[in-house]
Formats: sequence, C-alpha cells, structure tokens
Amino acid sequence: MTESATLLEESLHVLRKRVNDRLAEYMNLEPDCPQSLQSAVSYSLLAGGKRLRPILVLLACEACGGDSEAALPAACAIEMIHTYSLIHDDLPAMDDDDLRRGKPTNHVVFGEAQAILAGDGLLTLAFEVLARDTKPAETAAACCVDLANAAGVVGMVGGQVADLEAENSGVDSVSELEAVHRRKTGRLLSSSLTLGGRVAGADEATLGILKDYGEKIGLAFQIADDLLDIEGDREKMGKAVQKDSSHGKLTYPGLLGVELSRQKARELITAACASISPLGERGRHLEALAHFVLERDH
Amino acid sequence: MTESATLLEESLHVLRKRVNDRLAEYMNLEPDCPQSLQSAVSYSLLAGGKRLRPILVLLACEACGGDSEAALPAACAIEMIHTYSLIHDDLPAMDDDDLRRGKPTNHVVFGEAQAILAGDGLLTLAFEVLARDTKPAETAAACCVDLANAAGVVGMVGGQVADLEAENSGVDSVSELEAVHRRKTGRLLSSSLTLGGRVAGADEATLGILKDYGEKIGLAFQIADDLLDIEGDREKMGKAVQKDSSHGKLTYPGLLGVELSRQKARELITAACASISPLGERGRHLEALAHFVLERDH
Repeated sequence: MTESATLLEESLHVLRKRVNDRLAEYMNLEPDCPQSLQSAVSYSLLAGGKRLRPILVLLACEACGGDSEAALPAACAIEMIHTYSLIHDDLPAMDDDDLRRGKPTNHVVFGEAQAILAGDGLLTLAFEVLARDTKPAETAAACCVDLANAAGVVGMVGGQVADLEAENSGVDSVSELEAVHRRKTGRLLSSSLTLGGRVAGADEATLGILKDYGEKIGLAFQIADDLLDIEGDREKMGKAVQKDSSHGKLTYPGLLGVELSRQKARELITAACASISPLGERGRHLEALAHFVLERDH
Repeated sequence: MTESATLLEESLHVLRKRVNDRLAEYMNLEPDCPQSLQSAVSYSLLAGGKRLRPILVLLACEACGGDSEAALPAACAIEMIHTYSLIHDDLPAMDDDDLRRGKPTNHVVFGEAQAILAGDGLLTLAFEVLARDTKPAETAAACCVDLANAAGVVGMVGGQVADLEAENSGVDSVSELEAVHRRKTGRLLSSSLTLGGRVAGADEATLGILKDYGEKIGLAFQIADDLLDIEGDREKMGKAVQKDSSHGKLTYPGLLGVELSRQKARELITAACASISPLGERGRHLEALAHFVLERDH
C-alpha cells in the first residue's frame, strides 16, 4: 500500500469512528420505543459497514470549507436511509437475502413484521435527526428536501422498482441499466455530497459540482460492486456471491463484460475527479477517496 | 340530523375536497417515478377516506388564527404517513388484510414488493412535501421533527410493534391497552393538531393545549373504532368486520365491555373539549368535530 493510501485509510478510520459514535448515540431511544424494536434497528444500523455515504457527507462539508462536526446529523441521517433500504431490500418479498455484512439479515433474526417496521422506523428517524440537529433551520429544511427527493419515488425507491421490473422484462442496453442505477444508488450517493455542501453553506454552483461528482462515483461504485459480486468470495463479502447474476439480475459485467466494465468505472472516476477540480486543494480528499474506494469493496 | 350537524358536515366536505385536490396535485410525480409505482401510491393515497387527520391540521391552524391554505402541505404530509402505515399494516407479514375502504389492499393489486416500496415512497414523500412547501423554513423544520417523532419508533411505528407483541403475549389491563394506542394512533392524531398550530405560529402553551386535545380524541376515536368493528357490518366498513376481535386483537370492548367502552369514549370527548376551552370561540370547530366524528365511522 502506498504512503498516501495509508494516510487516507487512517483518515477514513477516524471519520468512520466519528460516524459510528454518533450513530450509537442516536440509538439511545426514548423508553416509548419497544425494546424489541430498539434491538432490531440497532442490529442493522450498528452492524458496521464502510460508512461510505456518511463519510462523503463529512468530506463534502470540509471540501466546501465547513466544519464537518455540523454535518454529523446529516451523515447519520443518510446512513439510516441506506440501512433501512437494505433491511427492506433483503425481505422475502424483495431480494430474499439471508446474509448481509456477514450476519443474518434483519428479518431472519427479528421476523418479517419487525423488519418492515424497523425499516420504517429508521426511515422516519433519519428525517427527525436531520430536521432537529442540522442548523440553521433553513439548512435543515433544505437538507430534508434534498434527502427525501434522493431517497423517494423519483430516486432510490423508484430505482428499486425499476430494478425489479428490469429483472422481469429484461434490459439489454447500457442506457437502460444506467437509468436504473442513477436512481437506485446514484441519487442517494449524490445527495451525500450535496447535504455536506449545504451544511457548509455552499452556493448553487458548488452544489451542482458536488452533485455531478456524486452521480459519477455513484455509477462507478455500482460497476465496482457488480464486479466484486463476480470476483469476490463468499467469506470476504459476507453475502451470497453471484446471487445477483444467478437471479438474472441486471449487472454491468453481464452486459459489457468484465474488461469493458472495469474500464468504464475507471473513466467515471477520472471524470468525477475532473468535475471537482474547481474546488482545488480542498477537494483532494474526495479525489483520493474516489480512487481508493474503487479498488476495494464498499 | 340536527342543523348544526348538517352545517358541520358541509364544512367538512369543503375541507375534504381541498385536501383531496392538493393530494391529487402531489401525485403528479416527475417522470423518474416508474409508472407502476405512481399507480401504486396513487391507488392508496387517492382511495378516499374521511381525511380526518388532514382536516384536523386545517382546523387546528384556523383555531390558532392561521390561514389554513398554508397548512395544506402539512395536511397532505400527515395523510401520506397515515396511508403508508395502512399499506404496510395490511401486508401478509403484518395484519394480512385483503380489503381496505371497500377495495382490495395495495399488495393484493400490485404485489407485495411494490406495496412495501409504495409505502416507503409515501413515507418519504411526506417529508419532502412538508419540508419544501411549509413556510417559513423554521416552521418547516419544526413540523418535520414533530411529524417524524409522532410517526416513528417512539410513536406510531413503536405502537404498531407494541400492538403485535400484545397480540402474542396478551394484555389484560386498560393502562397497557392505552399505552399501545397512545403510540399507535394517538401520537399521529395529536401531531395533526400541533402541525396545524405550528403553521399558524402558535406558542408553546397553545401547542400543549392542542396536543392534549389530540391525545384525548385519539383515544376516543380508537375506542369508537373498536366499537364499530363489533357493531358494523361488512358492507358499510369495507373491511372484514370482527377480524380484529376474532384474531385475538386487543380492543376496548374486549377488555371493558361495550357499555363501559362507549362511556369512556364520551368522557374522553368531553375532556378533550374542556382542554381546548382556552381557545374560546375559535376552537368551536374542533369541539364540534370531536362530538361529530365519535358518532360516525372514520
């Protein structure tokens, strides 16, 4: 590992710990939350993971000259949204997955009803935390709109529906595949960036730059994920490998082949880095992260 | 029907139409929302119903001297939350209901995966609409916190979990039953009132009065609902009657008997009306509504 990669990894470790500590604080729920529900939401939210989205929130805030401490509520909110989406995606009626991050999925441990409600609870808590703890109120409201739009029917939820439909009807063009992933994973990833920018008080032009970067790395990470799914081994991934492709799920390598997919991901990362060049030196962590994460699982 | 009841019914009809019109506008979703998802969310959101919660938002706003037009986004947001909760509650893994408001439930028409996602989408859209269209931003942020707290793990979602657990473990005291319903239905109903008050710029003391009124009528309506379930007929209700009691579900008449339950509901309505007496003449619609709705299904 190069020296700069080691430095970045250390820096990511520090950011991840700050996110994990704040997430654990947010799991100190009032007694009106039933104990079993508290267990179910904590089980998935505190299960670890790379914390890519919250780290992007913090880095984007810093890249816009803000104090990343002020972006922690937004960082935690987006991780709650991401986690709820995993709980619901794993349900028997959806992808029907038994393993996630090396552990039994939420519904396997807590039952289907509790898993549905744990997802609903996390989705709702995301907006409570974001609206309550982001300051000032103008920023809180703007962040709620941003996150809801990215996570909702024209964003992540819409993309999930489009993905389920594509599995049934078949999709044979890269543009159709991208239309699915732009919504399913790209919008939320892009929102991570703009939330961080909003907390830092970034202007519309800068938010546009962050959005552009987010969409490009979102697509790149999706391709990397597809490639990992083919190349990874079950132990490393902690989920059933090649499940996606064996279920006839839409993937980049399935459509373009491994080599072209890898090349496309690299091109997207290069383009993402070019798009944040106006941020200058302050954008260097985002640039480094883009290269770094592509080479690893996330 | 008395003259005042007729006047109130006409006034409710007008409010309901304003809510329905705005909800229909909100269902003009951007093209990034897949057509099938658009159909699924519209199917349940525009299925009619009494629109009790949004009407309470508008009446509370007026009772605090505000312009109810400004409260329409909050009114629609709370109806979206209510509708998502019905979609998820009806799922096979939850109450497994086939009929709702006289029509097949969402998952019966669109499938389980789509119904889960339609619920997620409506829940998310509620916060988008509330944060984007409520002015000023301070009010929008405060409304998001209020609604999320009422709908989340210490509110409606927590109450639903407590209800499922009570079905299994058995509950034999009225105080335990109330602890379930305070969260499952009371908190969201109470939030209808405080959202309306917030939009009108009500002070904390007034919000406290509205919250108190909301909690009391919330419980009263729950008892009325339990009584209807026993006394109603299938055609009138549009859902399987006595399903709740036949499934061993927790009800007031089951615990207290019909007569004592009816008396308790009346006492709660009287207490609710007393609690808003400080609002004076402006609270008269809320007072009338409390009496009116108790006598009918909702």
